[in-house]
Amino acid sequence: MLTVRTISELNQAMADMGILAPVYYSEETIWLLDQVLLPFREEYIPLRTTADVARAIVEMRTRGAGAIAATAAYGMLERAHQGASMEELEAAGAEMVATRPTASSIGWTVNRILALRTTDPEAIEAAVVSFIAAKIMAEVEIARIGASLVDDGDTVLTHCHAGTIAGVGYGGITFGVFRQAVADGKDIRVIATETRPYLQGARITAWELTKVNIPVTLITDNAAGYFLSTRAVQKVVVGADRVLLNGDVANKVGTYMIALAAAANGVPFYVGVGRAGLDFATARGADIAVEMRDSREVTDIGGRRIAASGVEAMYPAFDITPGGLVSAFITERGVIRPPFAEGFREKYTTVEESN
Amino acid sequence: MLTVRTISELNQAMADMGILAPVYYSEETIWLLDQVLLPFREEYIPLRTTADVARAIVEMRTRGAGAIAATAAYGMLERAHQGASMEELEAAGAEMVATRPTASSIGWTVNRILALRTTDPEAIEAAVVSFIAAKIMAEVEIARIGASLVDDGDTVLTHCHAGTIAGVGYGGITFGVFRQAVADGKDIRVIATETRPYLQGARITAWELTKVNIPVTLITDNAAGYFLSTRAVQKVVVGADRVLLNGDVANKVGTYMIALAAAANGVPFYVGVGRAGLDFATARGADIAVEMRDSREVTDIGGRRIAASGVEAMYPAFDITPGGLVSAFITERGVIRPPFAEGFREKYTTVEESN
Repeated sequence: MLTVRTISELNQAMADMGILAPVYYSEETIWLLDQVLLPFREEYIPLRTTADVARAIVEMRTRGAGAIAATAAYGMLERAHQGASMEELEAAGAEMVATRPTASSIGWTVNRILALRTTDPEAIEAAVVSFIAAKIMAEVEIARIGASLVDDGDTVLTHCHAGTIAGVGYGGITFGVFRQAVADGKDIRVIATETRPYLQGARITAWELTKVNIPVTLITDNAAGYFLSTRAVQKVVVGADRVLLNGDVANKVGTYMIALAAAANGVPFYVGVGRAGLDFATARGADIAVEMRDSREVTDIGGRRIAASGVEAMYPAFDITPGGLVSAFITERGVIRPPFAEGFREKYTTVEESN
Repeated sequence: MLTVRTISELNQAMADMGILAPVYYSEETIWLLDQVLLPFREEYIPLRTTADVARAIVEMRTRGAGAIAATAAYGMLERAHQGASMEELEAAGAEMVATRPTASSIGWTVNRILALRTTDPEAIEAAVVSFIAAKIMAEVEIARIGASLVDDGDTVLTHCHAGTIAGVGYGGITFGVFRQAVADGKDIRVIATETRPYLQGARITAWELTKVNIPVTLITDNAAGYFLSTRAVQKVVVGADRVLLNGDVANKVGTYMIALAAAANGVPFYVGVGRAGLDFATARGADIAVEMRDSREVTDIGGRRIAASGVEAMYPAFDITPGGLVSAFITERGVIRPPFAEGFREKYTTVEESN
């Protein structure tokens, strides 16, 4: 357990653990690692209002279920330091939740803080610190549990980025699994999809693996099927933005086709998910509202137009992978195999606790 | 039938039919539409040797089974005009065939010309003209037959580019089908995948559809599964670089995952293929050598690096879609449904005729 009570103790613990923080709080300012600049520049930008936080999330300066939840938590703390009333805290929370309708982690975090029914900065600081510390320990657990599913000699395919800075910095979902597998003495390789249109795989996943010398091969998203069908991949490990009781998964668009290709070729498909990503209230994946994002992200790359003028585009940020395509979930409470509803209910005994 | 005997008659007929030629021959020079510059510039570059042709194919200045075969045919004619011996013609053919080991259309065309056992430019001109004219008529037939599979109100998803300038300019495979469906009075929409890394979908497919006012929506490759699973797509129509007797298809990487997603959602998956793309000699898709192309095409976009330094990449240009995922083939001899071997054997009675 991490026994930290204040922001400064938390910051010290994170430094001691060698955490690459996607966000931290210091001197009443939120310092956010600007993921848009990666992998070429590592720069923390200051956020001083929840409007700043909302804008940074919309602009994808931070992303990943854990990182956006942590950023929103610090946003609530900042608002409390500014002397917000309960109504103002609620409005600030709503402003941040509205940025990402598909991702449930912001709402879960904000609601936990609002449920304290306090505007006292010290009480909220304690809650935020406890929330972040718990998330770090959850990442340590997910890494340990996920690594048990990866064998020596495996090539693991992953999509998008659910690594360090998508979480709170220890390992997120996937990076922690890969790092722990290597720490356990396993020789592994990773195939990372580039993940259009934002190229999180090319810019971030491949970058963080290279930083710790885990061999990584970058591929275009459309090539995942080729590598799965030629037996070049032994496992698929991805993160999730939202997981339902029946195992349906909302994750970065493209996850669904990779799951289909894994199933067609008998390759295990593992989904890592933190507690904030669990949604036991929504019955089926089809009920999840999939966010459509700015179509210029498809027609332009790096600000340069690639499509002929007049061509329209659509960019759904997520897709839904049916639970039937998932081999197992990696959670901080253990590996959950089908039937998933039973497994989730057993590990997360009450709805309150999980969502 | 197109009754043309000389290059100049052929060029006149192509102009009369409103053909957007990916390549044409005039005054002993091959004029190639430089597809690398599309959609922003439409420029024909002169090729004067088979080495020029080979380089242009390697540099992807022309692509698509029909277009590269036509370019290679003109290359043989050019070489004959230069007074090549039979051995020199054979060497010129081999040089061009070597550029694209997976695509069989170049080899098929070159071998047909070599089989004449002549170096006489007039005889070779007649053969090349007859070859191109037959390809145009095949495209007219494929358009007519393919359009019969598309219903009024359909949204059709396509991958990569198998349109006008991938063929000999009438409609290639997919564009002809779309154009004919509209000509038949059907209201259709197209969803085009961008097709990383070369972005043929964004740059060419979307461009040519916009040119004739067929509504097109551009998506990232990884989003095809989303649109198939949400019933936004009623048909998939793609081209093929190579089709085997058992229905296995080699086509642009990503085709396989789209076929899996179509099958999983009960959406018909149609593959259009010209005669030059049929390969009845290879038994199974797994026997097809898949070309690995320059990995910088993945790590860089438009000459700009997107991945962190030190990150390696792989780019398989094709993948194999098992025949079991194909609903039907669209050929100039009719629609071929499973069992494919039987259907292909019936329509193409001898191996000589087809390959």
